[in-house]
Amino acid sequence: MQDAQDIINAAHQMADAARAAILPFFRTGLAADNKWQTGFDPVTEADRAAERAMREVLARLRPDDAILGEEYGKTEGSSGLTWILDPIDGTRAFLCGAASWGVLIGVSDGQDIIYGLIDQPYTRERFEGGLGRARLVTDSGEYPLAVRKVDLAQATLLTTYPEVGTPAEAEAFRRVSGQVRLTRYGLDCYAYGLLALGQVDLVIEAGLQSYDIAGPLAVVQAAGGIVTNWQGGPAHQGGQVIAAASAELHRAALALLNGGAA
Amino acid sequence: MQDAQDIINAAHQMADAARAAILPFFRTGLAADNKWQTGFDPVTEADRAAERAMREVLARLRPDDAILGEEYGKTEGSSGLTWILDPIDGTRAFLCGAASWGVLIGVSDGQDIIYGLIDQPYTRERFEGGLGRARLVTDSGEYPLAVRKVDLAQATLLTTYPEVGTPAEAEAFRRVSGQVRLTRYGLDCYAYGLLALGQVDLVIEAGLQSYDIAGPLAVVQAAGGIVTNWQGGPAHQGGQVIAAASAELHRAALALLNGGAA
Repeated sequence: MQDAQDIINAAHQMADAARAAILPFFRTGLAADNKWQTGFDPVTEADRAAERAMREVLARLRPDDAILGEEYGKTEGSSGLTWILDPIDGTRAFLCGAASWGVLIGVSDGQDIIYGLIDQPYTRERFEGGLGRARLVTDSGEYPLAVRKVDLAQATLLTTYPEVGTPAEAEAFRRVSGQVRLTRYGLDCYAYGLLALGQVDLVIEAGLQSYDIAGPLAVVQAAGGIVTNWQGGPAHQGGQVIAAASAELHRAALALLNGGAA
Repeated sequence: MQDAQDIINAAHQMADAARAAILPFFRTGLAADNKWQTGFDPVTEADRAAERAMREVLARLRPDDAILGEEYGKTEGSSGLTWILDPIDGTRAFLCGAASWGVLIGVSDGQDIIYGLIDQPYTRERFEGGLGRARLVTDSGEYPLAVRKVDLAQATLLTTYPEVGTPAEAEAFRRVSGQVRLTRYGLDCYAYGLLALGQVDLVIEAGLQSYDIAGPLAVVQAAGGIVTNWQGGPAHQGGQVIAAASAELHRAALALLNGGAA
């Protein structure tokens, strides 16, 4: 893709803008309001300010690209590229003051997610994958992203909520969880960064939106991992998602999710 | 206490030494070995190196104080003070590459925990409480620690493991969890720092060791919070621990833990 460097530059400027928009709201007493009457879905001023800031960068640098954002929906474009934005993935973590939330940016060419970022503004960690990039950038340097290879019995599995999704989804998750060495909870999008960094081996979630997975998908794939839905098909629409460090681990976990043996 | 400044200085030197000892091991491919044949209790070289580093500081600066460390046990002293050390609380988080683990330092005068630290070496956050201190120190500045006041229905509750402890302990936990606004998992000792920072309201855990709670207890109390066991008695021996941002919240949560109404 000839404008790969343009895309990468735009993504970093967007992530920088989102950081600046969000951080003044982190660890303040900011009240959340509820998007739905039922359940708890905090949407903060920070969320909205960050998406506006990212859209302003795109309007300036790449006005012909389409946008799909969590907060402000769909904006049509003519270039064939769509920017998929989740300004704060992990708003519940954000409201706890925990740094597992992140700014998610994915770029779709209509078929694949060709590039993505997971940015953690507070710790200043930026996971980047696609268009030839696979790295973590922090204030102390740049680190290559590459998955590790371990067996299911030695694997570490991450998800965000112990209840995972529906009771049936939770049961499927526990079939995998029962076979791995270690399961941990509560890491939101940061989990995909840790998988890409070779620190953990599986991330399994349900009930995702497309903007929850576009950025992480590109990061994990660039690091050599596999991201699909629980049926082994494309994951970019969200729903039930599994990210695995290797084809072997992916196959074993999929079999367990679908009720078979590993 | 006339040597308060000496104690504080020693604690910070110890935490600095622990950081230097641990960070080279963080996010490497370091294998864990198992302390027990059954279950999974990773103890890393980093854990041991950090406790040795802290003990070397004490041997130099405060050779008359006693030490109780997770890795190297009890060292007798003559001053009446005991340093209670957990070089890496949250070794499972550490092995996942997540930054919710911490170095815990507590100082006991034989009756109370008079001072404590929770240090996160990777994010360079240090929560400090007691002997007149109540602050978070980061690379970007110092922030006062002070709990917030909310009702149980508006409270955020943290714990590390969804299973909490025994089935009965998990059931007691869920009586509280069912009444609060938000429950999150997986934050280890960092949870107590977030409570002291006024970001969350309750931390409830079971199966703790004395070295798991000494440092956090001092930090939370210095911020205006309450830390007890589930019966409302002293928490410094570990076991079942509840930390609450206010007396009202503490009372309501204790009632639920013990089977009554809030």
